[in-house]
Amino acid sequence: MTGDDGHRNAAGTGGDGPDREKEAQIHTKLRAGSLKLYELEKQMAPVDAVRVRRRFIEHETGTMLENIGIFSIDVDRAATRNCENMIGAVQVPVGVAGPLAINGEYAKGTFWLPLATTEGALVASVNRGAGAITKAGGAEVRILHDGMTRAPVFAAKSVGHAKEIADWAEAHEEDLAAIAATTTSHGKMTGLVTFVAGTSVFVRLEFDTKDAMGMNMVTIASAKIADEIAQATGARLIALSGNMCTDKKPAAINGIMGRGRSVVAGIALSHELVEKVLKTDAATMIEVNYRKNLVGSARAGAMGFNAHAANIVAAMFIACGQDAAHAIDGSTCMTTIDATESGVYVAVTLPSLPVGTVGGGTGVDTQNECLKILGVAGGGSPAGSNAKKLAEIIGAGVLAGELSLIGALAAQHLARAHQELGRGQKR
Amino acid sequence: MTGDDGHRNAAGTGGDGPDREKEAQIHTKLRAGSLKLYELEKQMAPVDAVRVRRRFIEHETGTMLENIGIFSIDVDRAATRNCENMIGAVQVPVGVAGPLAINGEYAKGTFWLPLATTEGALVASVNRGAGAITKAGGAEVRILHDGMTRAPVFAAKSVGHAKEIADWAEAHEEDLAAIAATTTSHGKMTGLVTFVAGTSVFVRLEFDTKDAMGMNMVTIASAKIADEIAQATGARLIALSGNMCTDKKPAAINGIMGRGRSVVAGIALSHELVEKVLKTDAATMIEVNYRKNLVGSARAGAMGFNAHAANIVAAMFIACGQDAAHAIDGSTCMTTIDATESGVYVAVTLPSLPVGTVGGGTGVDTQNECLKILGVAGGGSPAGSNAKKLAEIIGAGVLAGELSLIGALAAQHLARAHQELGRGQKR
Amino acid sequence: MTGDDGHRNAAGTGGDGPDREKEAQIHTKLRAGSLKLYELEKQMAPVDAVRVRRRFIEHETGTMLENIGIFSIDVDRAATRNCENMIGAVQVPVGVAGPLAINGEYAKGTFWLPLATTEGALVASVNRGAGAITKAGGAEVRILHDGMTRAPVFAAKSVGHAKEIADWAEAHEEDLAAIAATTTSHGKMTGLVTFVAGTSVFVRLEFDTKDAMGMNMVTIASAKIADEIAQATGARLIALSGNMCTDKKPAAINGIMGRGRSVVAGIALSHELVEKVLKTDAATMIEVNYRKNLVGSARAGAMGFNAHAANIVAAMFIACGQDAAHAIDGSTCMTTIDATESGVYVAVTLPSLPVGTVGGGTGVDTQNECLKILGVAGGGSPAGSNAKKLAEIIGAGVLAGELSLIGALAAQHLARAHQELGRGQKR
Amino acid sequence: MTGDDGHRNAAGTGGDGPDREKEAQIHTKLRAGSLKLYELEKQMAPVDAVRVRRRFIEHETGTMLENIGIFSIDVDRAATRNCENMIGAVQVPVGVAGPLAINGEYAKGTFWLPLATTEGALVASVNRGAGAITKAGGAEVRILHDGMTRAPVFAAKSVGHAKEIADWAEAHEEDLAAIAATTTSHGKMTGLVTFVAGTSVFVRLEFDTKDAMGMNMVTIASAKIADEIAQATGARLIALSGNMCTDKKPAAINGIMGRGRSVVAGIALSHELVEKVLKTDAATMIEVNYRKNLVGSARAGAMGFNAHAANIVAAMFIACGQDAAHAIDGSTCMTTIDATESGVYVAVTLPSLPVGTVGGGTGVDTQNECLKILGVAGGGSPAGSNAKKLAEIIGAGVLAGELSLIGALAAQHLARAHQELGRGQKR
Repeated sequence: MTGDDGHRNAAGTGGDGPDREKEAQIHTKLRAGSLKLYELEKQMAPVDAVRVRRRFIEHETGTMLENIGIFSIDVDRAATRNCENMIGAVQVPVGVAGPLAINGEYAKGTFWLPLATTEGALVASVNRGAGAITKAGGAEVRILHDGMTRAPVFAAKSVGHAKEIADWAEAHEEDLAAIAATTTSHGKMTGLVTFVAGTSVFVRLEFDTKDAMGMNMVTIASAKIADEIAQATGARLIALSGNMCTDKKPAAINGIMGRGRSVVAGIALSHELVEKVLKTDAATMIEVNYRKNLVGSARAGAMGFNAHAANIVAAMFIACGQDAAHAIDGSTCMTTIDATESGVYVAVTLPSLPVGTVGGGTGVDTQNECLKILGVAGGGSPAGSNAKKLAEIIGAGVLAGELSLIGALAAQHLARAHQELGRGQKR
Repeated sequence: MTGDDGHRNAAGTGGDGPDREKEAQIHTKLRAGSLKLYELEKQMAPVDAVRVRRRFIEHETGTMLENIGIFSIDVDRAATRNCENMIGAVQVPVGVAGPLAINGEYAKGTFWLPLATTEGALVASVNRGAGAITKAGGAEVRILHDGMTRAPVFAAKSVGHAKEIADWAEAHEEDLAAIAATTTSHGKMTGLVTFVAGTSVFVRLEFDTKDAMGMNMVTIASAKIADEIAQATGARLIALSGNMCTDKKPAAINGIMGRGRSVVAGIALSHELVEKVLKTDAATMIEVNYRKNLVGSARAGAMGFNAHAANIVAAMFIACGQDAAHAIDGSTCMTTIDATESGVYVAVTLPSLPVGTVGGGTGVDTQNECLKILGVAGGGSPAGSNAKKLAEIIGAGVLAGELSLIGALAAQHLARAHQELGRGQKR
Repeated sequence: MTGDDGHRNAAGTGGDGPDREKEAQIHTKLRAGSLKLYELEKQMAPVDAVRVRRRFIEHETGTMLENIGIFSIDVDRAATRNCENMIGAVQVPVGVAGPLAINGEYAKGTFWLPLATTEGALVASVNRGAGAITKAGGAEVRILHDGMTRAPVFAAKSVGHAKEIADWAEAHEEDLAAIAATTTSHGKMTGLVTFVAGTSVFVRLEFDTKDAMGMNMVTIASAKIADEIAQATGARLIALSGNMCTDKKPAAINGIMGRGRSVVAGIALSHELVEKVLKTDAATMIEVNYRKNLVGSARAGAMGFNAHAANIVAAMFIACGQDAAHAIDGSTCMTTIDATESGVYVAVTLPSLPVGTVGGGTGVDTQNECLKILGVAGGGSPAGSNAKKLAEIIGAGVLAGELSLIGALAAQHLARAHQELGRGQKR
Repeated sequence: MTGDDGHRNAAGTGGDGPDREKEAQIHTKLRAGSLKLYELEKQMAPVDAVRVRRRFIEHETGTMLENIGIFSIDVDRAATRNCENMIGAVQVPVGVAGPLAINGEYAKGTFWLPLATTEGALVASVNRGAGAITKAGGAEVRILHDGMTRAPVFAAKSVGHAKEIADWAEAHEEDLAAIAATTTSHGKMTGLVTFVAGTSVFVRLEFDTKDAMGMNMVTIASAKIADEIAQATGARLIALSGNMCTDKKPAAINGIMGRGRSVVAGIALSHELVEKVLKTDAATMIEVNYRKNLVGSARAGAMGFNAHAANIVAAMFIACGQDAAHAIDGSTCMTTIDATESGVYVAVTLPSLPVGTVGGGTGVDTQNECLKILGVAGGGSPAGSNAKKLAEIIGAGVLAGELSLIGALAAQHLARAHQELGRGQKR
């Protein structure tokens, strides 16, 4: 808590004379450009650099940043590993939804889901869905596929050369995996496919990254592999990421081939439960899902066939120290509702959920505590089991959110239908 | 700072005897389900409810949440408006990138961009791009379109009935706008289009929501309009959101018709600047963009034609109290690089950036301070100008991020090419 | 039938001596390149040019093309308006499906649909669907939108310039429509929207082309409009078609904004009819459509949500002299099946069906006869009514095809289920 | 030519008394429904059935179908294998483009491409492109992948069951391939991948179908495999085609995994050739492709990144007896133009071209002659080589078409630019 205390002292009292003067000199240099804002950490401890920088920004923009200056996370770590030019932190409220019963292969039991959000009603919605799922015996969840990818793009001299490059890479998959193995002891290259577009050749490499989300280790391994391909084939390496990975963009390839953890979660709800807990009926839920999530999304040219999966993915990602920009790929979800003899079967399919429990933001103190709430902080035993458990929990959380919103829409529709009926009878 | 202090006391010392006992009783009730977790705010002040709830979660999950319990934001507001079942907050490190010169219609001058992230290298990357843009005279930014949308879906009895409903809605656009006007004094309905898919009718309503992101006001207005349509045409309203809005899913319709603020930002870079600042050349930058962002994304079936726009959009959204799940729609960006006589012209196009400076998370203290850094906290004068200014700044920030990453990839490629050349000569 | 007779004589007997010699001389010139294959029509009557050319190809490729040489269509017209370097014709078998009862706004009554295809089972399938529809009282069909488009692309100097160009075009819509009016007395410009992507500006112009498919008149009008925009704004016109039209490529923009004729067709089937005619039940049909056409297509990243709409569109386009490459846009169809109290409601939605009854291939004799079978040959009264009638008929034909195939799949599924049940009982 | 003669006699003279009377009786039965239109072949020779049916349609619709009645193709075959309810044929004009030099792995030499079309300018355009390619030394063409697919869809009881089904299928790939082998001696199952969407399981089976397009053999094999999967896993088979195949719909999965023959074709053009033959320059061609085919298509949400590939694919498919509805998948093409030191490198990539040289419409006489022109009629030696050769030729044809149209657009743009310059100088 030193970071927090240090800043609060600084922010609160302003510090004494000599310090102020020294800071003013730094500000002058920063303004003149003779000192760069990112060089402060080289001249002083991170905790001071963050304070000086924040106060410089306060002066430059004429604002008071007293709340941004209050934080308790380890500033030495945050300012060096998580965020350059750090001036403090924003506080994102965290609520819990649960208990949510989950029957996964990795997540077994009941869980309290931490959701970091500033959008009212979100936690309440997931909470309601969690209740229904838990009453129904718990969400069944499965990991369908697991693999983080990177796809360097190469330039060939001709389409014939392009095919040669692709063929060479596919023929040398084992050799390239061996090269990957020299760069990491944690991850493992598990797949390689090639794509040609004119003279551009994309080699999509897939890795088992265990408990890490893995982009970093994958990128390092891919760099070495790409060099080998270039040297062996005469291909020119254009970019380590050729957008067929695909990272942080919604992409059909991720839906089809998977990226990160591919998760599916489902729950059977009886007619009775649909009626009592969700205040609607099976046919109405099915119609809402059909006209909104399937027909509506298709008609809109949408890549997501769901109600609001992104809300849950983004809130859990922020809470749990995941890369928030990965909510883009992570939230491409399809929600399906089947008619069954006993009621409905509701499921969500998330083909490309990139998550990890080590590295990145998972070590930031508050985020780490959220992972601990779920019992998935740090590396799992066996390796990879924690990340898969987290993926299953997020999948179940999305199921809860979908169930809740679709149920609510269906209940409203049913209410209107009854009202309409009432009106009709009077006439 | 009371919230912070209150929690810290609670977390730190544990409080005295009587309180502990009372809390234990509450825990028992919570565990038994006779008291719901979300009912705590009805029985005590939010600050206490948050503490009690957090300690309940600590006990249930066997974890210590001391950092989550430290926050300075106004808990009365946060626990009621932003987050149900609140147990505290996560702290997301904030760094600044800048100064970034912007020549927009709303944003004019130089800005320091706050980015909340746990992913190292991101702020540094945007910072580097900001430097190049500022040296080149500043990013030119324009708002192409402005309108928040909601598209209720109705069920018709037949395709003939579907056409009647659509025709009726289009013919009564003015009447429906008048109905919308009775629900809000801030926003204004500005457009209506209809879509038919079999017996499903979607009425996409568009609003000028001024400085608000506007989903709430739009949803309220749409509810009343939808009732009117249903009553007048015999259509059954299935769901207020029929996924042709499209909210929080990547969708072609948003790219084509726009949603939220549609922004385009560009910068001309001279050959000299490309060489000195980005350490590459025009042809190489163009080739990287061509093979990666255009060909690669197309080949992947991606909806985003950019390098990492999502990183900037997500980080600025979290910093500035925007709905983080809106980064999904907000980041569908196309990056283009033209060859010009004097160098290159780099541009980013973001057709559906949903942002606001009032409402939602913008009032949370730390997020509000980030908005203040940009000079856009609260309502603008004239109304709407602050939100548009924020949209322009984010657009410029994305341009900086793209420029930096593409420049870096191009510089690497160039370095490899020279190396290769060196190797070649030796042989 | 002169063309046919002429060729048959030529092909059959080979002609007399002097002609043979003259032809050999021409062949020599063609081989040497001193005479171009496409210049033959300048030296002789089309009927002779076609024969000489075909025989040249026979000699060059060592093949006998006796069937290609047999045709009855007016060669003077075909060789000059429909096909350069003509050597004859392929014969595509035509079958009829019907009678198909249609309740459209333009097509009223029962129709026999001509389908040109070489794929066995197709006509039979449509025929079976037509029977079910007719028994159920006829397909209800509606035209939702009507407009052929062209979208020139311009280059701007900067994003600011791009916005100026787009704004200018939108502000001068009426003036530009007046310019369009000077180029055609048949068509009428009815809409203009602009799109910006960095420095590229797309102006999507929409026209009412009456009974013509209209690409030609639209292109001529667009050329003049584009020149005006370029001159007034300093935009550089890059291409008359900027691919946001979008012509002959599947594109979300066509689904959303419509192109050509947007058609929806539907039919209510009673439980009894589903059982007796389609040998299945409502629930099974709905499940097939849900899992295959909605979930399957979504999971595949498909732009079509149907079973085999392309079969019907392509076969009717070839039969009726439509541009066969337009089957690409024309067949992007969504098939929906609703559960109703009395059975099912099946519908197809085709947002971008480009059809005409004058111009292009509609005047070729055999194709013209197919249009006559449908009562839509030539211009309608009022103008446009024939093309819309054709669009409605094709829509109904697609409905018949979808109904038939989905019904068959459902019947098979039901049969398997019963069989399974039988097996189960035995065990 | 009997079919033709027979019909012409019938159509021309009307036949004698007794026949007329008999035909009138048949018409009466047809009208009453006591005889079905498709039952005629059971009562008389195909040639007579076609004539009687056509005359019935003539009477019913009050039209004269004298041209449709003229054909020379083998009616016994056509009426039974290619087209039910046959009434005759449409004649589609065929032109040739060439000579086109091709350096493929299967197609080597120069070719005359037959194109069946009613759209003027198409053949001329391909012809111009063929000239440029041939002058430049011939198109380099490669087959990247080869495999026809079918993807049955199954219903599972739960997501857990879904994963079990998918796992079982993947684990039993060899066994299932053995089952496939019992159904066909021509084709071979070469791949199996599974996809889960909630409770829907798709098993995408891939086959080497040699010289056949192969849908039929693949469907028969898939049926037997699907039964085995259903029986072994308890999955319910919903439909033999679950739309993840994907057949006759544009779909990302086909672009990514390939379907049919995946073809890439390219050509290097020198600055001199671009100038002399295409009357433009490299930079202008590149700009047209960039703004139109890449940026324009991306902005339109299009699945095709080309100028008019569909024109060539459709025309060659109709000429060569391919399934015309396959032009939908076959034409999803990406056109790329690279800047090279010596000029430009233009390429087209067609990932899913379903073609064959045996079966389907390839045996219809006129279509067979078109295949003969290309030297690919019937089965190749080794098996599969003819179909691959045809795929390469079509790829080269598309390249010719793209080159020609982009070249023309670029030439126009250049002309306008010069004109503009002239105007500017005068002012």
